[in-house]
Amino acid sequence: MYTLTDFRLQDGGTEKEDIIINGSRMMTGNGLLGCRGTMEEGEADAMPALIMNGLYDRQGTGWREPVNIPHPLSVRLLPDEGPVLGICGDPRLVTHSQELDFRYGILSRDTVWRLPGTDGEPFDVTVRSRRFVSMARRDSLFLEYRIQCTGEVNLTLLHGIQTAVYDIHGPHLTDPSCRFSEEGMKLECRTGEENRTIQVEQTCRRTGFPDSSGEREEENGQGFYRVISLETAAGREYTLELTGTVAVKDMTPVGTDLEKISFEGELERHKAVWDGIWDRGDVLIEGDEEAAAALRYSLYQLQIIAPRGLERNLSVPARGLSGQTYKGAVFWDTEMFISPYFLATDPDTARRFLMYRVESLEGAREKSAEYGYRGAFYAWESQERGADACSDYNVTDVFSGKPVRTFFRDKQIHISSAIVYALDRYLHMTGDLNILYEGALEMALECALFYYSRSLWSPLHKRYEFHDVLGPDEYHERVDNNAYTSRMALFTFQTALGLACLTDDNRYRALRTDTDYLSYSNSLIERKGYRKELKEIRDITREVYVPVPGEKNVVYRASPERSAMENSSRNIVEQFAGYFSLQDKFPAEIRESLLHPKEYWGGSSGPASGTRVIKQADVVLMLSLFPGEYSPEVLRANYDFYEPRTEHGSSLSACAHALLAVKTGRPDEALPYFKKTALVDIKGDSKHFAGLVYIGGTHPAASGGAWMTVVEGFCGLSINDGELTLNPRLPAGWTGVRFTVMFKDERYDIRVTPEGHEIQKRRETVKGEM
Amino acid sequence: MYTLTDFRLQDGGTEKEDIIINGSRMMTGNGLLGCRGTMEEGEADAMPALIMNGLYDRQGTGWREPVNIPHPLSVRLLPDEGPVLGICGDPRLVTHSQELDFRYGILSRDTVWRLPGTDGEPFDVTVRSRRFVSMARRDSLFLEYRIQCTGEVNLTLLHGIQTAVYDIHGPHLTDPSCRFSEEGMKLECRTGEENRTIQVEQTCRRTGFPDSSGEREEENGQGFYRVISLETAAGREYTLELTGTVAVKDMTPVGTDLEKISFEGELERHKAVWDGIWDRGDVLIEGDEEAAAALRYSLYQLQIIAPRGLERNLSVPARGLSGQTYKGAVFWDTEMFISPYFLATDPDTARRFLMYRVESLEGAREKSAEYGYRGAFYAWESQERGADACSDYNVTDVFSGKPVRTFFRDKQIHISSAIVYALDRYLHMTGDLNILYEGALEMALECALFYYSRSLWSPLHKRYEFHDVLGPDEYHERVDNNAYTSRMALFTFQTALGLACLTDDNRYRALRTDTDYLSYSNSLIERKGYRKELKEIRDITREVYVPVPGEKNVVYRASPERSAMENSSRNIVEQFAGYFSLQDKFPAEIRESLLHPKEYWGGSSGPASGTRVIKQADVVLMLSLFPGEYSPEVLRANYDFYEPRTEHGSSLSACAHALLAVKTGRPDEALPYFKKTALVDIKGDSKHFAGLVYIGGTHPAASGGAWMTVVEGFCGLSINDGELTLNPRLPAGWTGVRFTVMFKDERYDIRVTPEGHEIQKRRETVKGEM
Repeated sequence: MYTLTDFRLQDGGTEKEDIIINGSRMMTGNGLLGCRGTMEEGEADAMPALIMNGLYDRQGTGWREPVNIPHPLSVRLLPDEGPVLGICGDPRLVTHSQELDFRYGILSRDTVWRLPGTDGEPFDVTVRSRRFVSMARRDSLFLEYRIQCTGEVNLTLLHGIQTAVYDIHGPHLTDPSCRFSEEGMKLECRTGEENRTIQVEQTCRRTGFPDSSGEREEENGQGFYRVISLETAAGREYTLELTGTVAVKDMTPVGTDLEKISFEGELERHKAVWDGIWDRGDVLIEGDEEAAAALRYSLYQLQIIAPRGLERNLSVPARGLSGQTYKGAVFWDTEMFISPYFLATDPDTARRFLMYRVESLEGAREKSAEYGYRGAFYAWESQERGADACSDYNVTDVFSGKPVRTFFRDKQIHISSAIVYALDRYLHMTGDLNILYEGALEMALECALFYYSRSLWSPLHKRYEFHDVLGPDEYHERVDNNAYTSRMALFTFQTALGLACLTDDNRYRALRTDTDYLSYSNSLIERKGYRKELKEIRDITREVYVPVPGEKNVVYRASPERSAMENSSRNIVEQFAGYFSLQDKFPAEIRESLLHPKEYWGGSSGPASGTRVIKQADVVLMLSLFPGEYSPEVLRANYDFYEPRTEHGSSLSACAHALLAVKTGRPDEALPYFKKTALVDIKGDSKHFAGLVYIGGTHPAASGGAWMTVVEGFCGLSINDGELTLNPRLPAGWTGVRFTVMFKDERYDIRVTPEGHEIQKRRETVKGEM
Repeated sequence: MYTLTDFRLQDGGTEKEDIIINGSRMMTGNGLLGCRGTMEEGEADAMPALIMNGLYDRQGTGWREPVNIPHPLSVRLLPDEGPVLGICGDPRLVTHSQELDFRYGILSRDTVWRLPGTDGEPFDVTVRSRRFVSMARRDSLFLEYRIQCTGEVNLTLLHGIQTAVYDIHGPHLTDPSCRFSEEGMKLECRTGEENRTIQVEQTCRRTGFPDSSGEREEENGQGFYRVISLETAAGREYTLELTGTVAVKDMTPVGTDLEKISFEGELERHKAVWDGIWDRGDVLIEGDEEAAAALRYSLYQLQIIAPRGLERNLSVPARGLSGQTYKGAVFWDTEMFISPYFLATDPDTARRFLMYRVESLEGAREKSAEYGYRGAFYAWESQERGADACSDYNVTDVFSGKPVRTFFRDKQIHISSAIVYALDRYLHMTGDLNILYEGALEMALECALFYYSRSLWSPLHKRYEFHDVLGPDEYHERVDNNAYTSRMALFTFQTALGLACLTDDNRYRALRTDTDYLSYSNSLIERKGYRKELKEIRDITREVYVPVPGEKNVVYRASPERSAMENSSRNIVEQFAGYFSLQDKFPAEIRESLLHPKEYWGGSSGPASGTRVIKQADVVLMLSLFPGEYSPEVLRANYDFYEPRTEHGSSLSACAHALLAVKTGRPDEALPYFKKTALVDIKGDSKHFAGLVYIGGTHPAASGGAWMTVVEGFCGLSINDGELTLNPRLPAGWTGVRFTVMFKDERYDIRVTPEGHEIQKRRETVKGEM
């Protein structure tokens, strides 16, 4: 069982399962590289991983996924007899503890093994290590590895580069070759699909080792190692300082000079960057220590994947840099749940997320054309340049073993609107119009063009509708008039028209008086030939149908459920046409009805598909995004209706519920959802395997949702008519929340208490090394 | 193995499978009653059935299905020792032969059993029987049952009413009670759902029986019986003449006087009706005896289910009256494949089919409203008053045993257009405008209103489209722009506008000068408030999109298949948006890829769904309905493209291919399809069981398709500009075809030869007892 205290997460588990969970739970990283929290000696079955943001490979017909880079901080300790000292199932293990300092992203261990001595007396070997992925040198990670024995003994110490990594759809790397030199070793290998060269280097400093230590080089089943024969002196400490560096052309910074690096020196530089990060990005909850630590841990998980300070614009994968699951792809998670934190604390990073999408515009256009539409249909699972990694068959049927046709790729059209939504937030939070000139205006217009080409006029209803979509609730496929999707498409139209200065939308009045912008915007519209469609979009926008609370919006299949529904409440928004006519079941009933524990709940004939049980917030999410458009009664009635019918089968669900609970004036009901969200990676109780395939990892959207719940929910931060406003509703027991917000190039220190709130503008904006 | 000669079908099979096949193959019936061709002694496992058109029952949550009526012609023969003499697995059986005379619908048998005699010498018992379902008395069926022995022996003879029938979703009948009288016996029982009383009566005459025969009444596991102890004299014949009569209030004719009935007398009356039927309905193929016999057999199968001369308007179920399969429901089979034969030979019957739909209009309106649409959405599986018997889960998954969500009921919208198509043919063939006043005009307008409410305007393509439909090819669900469906919806619009005199469509010019009709039509339109929608429909009609040959109509999922397609031919009509992008596989490949022999090929993730393999004619059917709209090159290219990709998993498929093959000038290629169609029930090689559930039966649509292939295909009969025309293309070897056609109240005798054709109007139209 883990221990969570302020900025410290400790765990002593040594079972296989603990090792897998700690791998994600104790991630370190710097936005470019992410390193799973496995121990130095861990072999492939411990699932060590070193992942580089944006580096993918595809083998044969397997899914395209991140490359698991050879691990440059591999250390293995062998007694004279018996296997390598390890923690899982090793009878020689006495104690093991590993700890993540999540203030500074330092993973340390303290492990003791007991071995039989040559004289019959047992003796102990203790290994203490610290390691971090440097925030100051983005291509490097550092390890300090200390060995101490209570007796004299012959040990074999191996340190090197581990090539025997695990892969889901690999192997991805070919032709490894390693050159050993006085300073260390340098491995070179190549990816299969793009034939990219990856260089992994290890340099080493030793302290306390006798000059007489025998030494050789070895290539073994695990990789390339330097092998040292060490006769220990009792009580004496032997220290290795290892530096691992990864170089991939166009992806890593160039020119790191390895010789000048020392562990302590680098640690100081690394910590200095972290100090700057926390200065901007910390949130302090007062009066609830668990909540405070969980939130900071969530912010840590976000910071270690933030791709700041790099040459390329990258975004963040839905499982962070914690492995190959979810194909290392970027989902709508970024725009809807992760971006808000960065936007409020580090707008440059939020801008990168947007620029990543701007640079993916061509991919989104191609995808749209693929399906016969126009404009930008963004990838559901986005890899580089917007390529969609999502398969048409993304689930395997447990009964037949056959692939199940899923509709994430082709019908989940709300992805493009999420990007426009994030852009709109970005513009209002930063006032940075430059991004519009840099491609974001075109992107927004192309997204609108996509929804335009996807819209349909119903002669029967005399309105524009969006048909055959998959909303956030993925258990109900190919539905018409999904409230969330339709509202977001409408928002996209409104935003595009506002940005094109074709409406009198107050949100964009500043643009309409900016002659430079007007001229840029007009010339873009002319050049790209958008004029005619924008006019049509203006007409369509007036008649887009979004399901309305209590409205008999679509009479579909008379059923007892439907009638009961209509009588019981006139405030509920129907999730999609026909939802009310489905069987009224609850998640526990579905769970009990399963014939197989891993049965997929969705799909055309899935156990939830014919019922009102939904995977995750859908109408609730819409209401939490547009609360001002609905009465408090409507917000409350929908929360009460949908909440018990939601499985929360996605990490995005709990935070949407928390936000709406606060907005309906029930912060105490929101608190459990907040904790669920903030603790998801600490508890590690989500699903880790599908069959034998690892599907676990970190949940950055939940981490971002934790911040949203506290700052946008409990503290009620929002922008109204160009001003920061707060509308706090703290849960019982919380005595205060302190945080910092960047708003239009100014920093504000904010403190919220049950009694009220203070906003203070900082005199000097410290420009730290971020 | 069966023997088929002119008007005679003989089979001697005694295996379980033969018995099931002969049950359908040797059906007798009169349009109201259908009787499976099982033997008199057959128990439930032989699947005897007596089905009454239009009599349904539902038990619990089971499917609603026809009631299997207690069988009034049950006869069982018992020797002193051993079980009832039977044909399946009975070691005492010496020979068995049964024969259907399909000129007169008489089923006869000749069966010999050998039994050990009391003196050690074995002796033979021979049973010869004849039976028919009377065309003259629609509520009655008759049996002559003759017994002859080669020795003296004690036999027990039972004759009675068999209540132990089989049921798929039963039992449907409760509280049977039987009253025995001097003349016979009368059973009464009730249906479960509607509490309808069913009376089944048997009367008996005996010839050759000694007066001393012992006699008693018995209720046993099979039903209610009169039990006769018979000591046979060698060589003497004992004859039973049984009459079975069924009475159901409002469903059967009243007042049959059973006492006056004799087998021979009734047989003569029955044959006289059949003579009239063949006088009108026969088709004689010269030069190909197998084809000639197979076609006549097909016409026989149609005639025995034709619901003529009854008080109620009935249609024909898709499996005829051959049992409970397909829920005894009426499908589009009637309008598209069965009605043409009757329309050309017996227009009153074709009119009944239409009036059945007129009387189902309210049900169709209700179904449409259920799905949020207007107008008439006819039942996919229509029972009385248009109730849709089709389930949302019409298939069971072989792997999980779970129900599969199918979309026959809600997405197969082409059903309503089939009815309008049949109405249009009816009007042009008969000139009978009265039907329009009797509800058919309203029906056509309501069908158009349905498609109106289902139409969608695409701002992108600037056209009206039909989305989310299931075409005739049921292996590809929920598609957009299915060519067949869109063309038929457009046809419905055109016909409705023509009938409403709102276009200058030449097909309806007669209506526009008929002032009575104009005034009726106008007042209907006013009264029902159709005016505004009809105006809109007129606009929509101009812009309805039907996929066009060679047009890149929808660019959907770039794929190697798609590109190959575009390069290879510009003449193919894409079956639906995206079809060309599917994997190019062939039926044999799908069959080989199955993990389970009974795996359903369709469904969201079915083995055919991601490929171009289709269940049945779809584009081919459209082209065979509207050949004049396409060039010969297009007809040919599409036939050549789709034919090898079609599984022909439906009995409707072969005839559509045959028709198009003829229309592309290849009658010899059409011939195998014609034979497949015409022989389907004779060969009996279609699937009879799904698991343990009987799903076999007759295929009237294939029978109708056989007639269409010969008369409309090979002989090229059509109506052009109000005139009967012929355009013969006979297959090699056929020396002639003779048939009769009713056209606008006149009869024409037609003879087609390879050299030409003759049409002769009959002087006197014989009004037979039809």
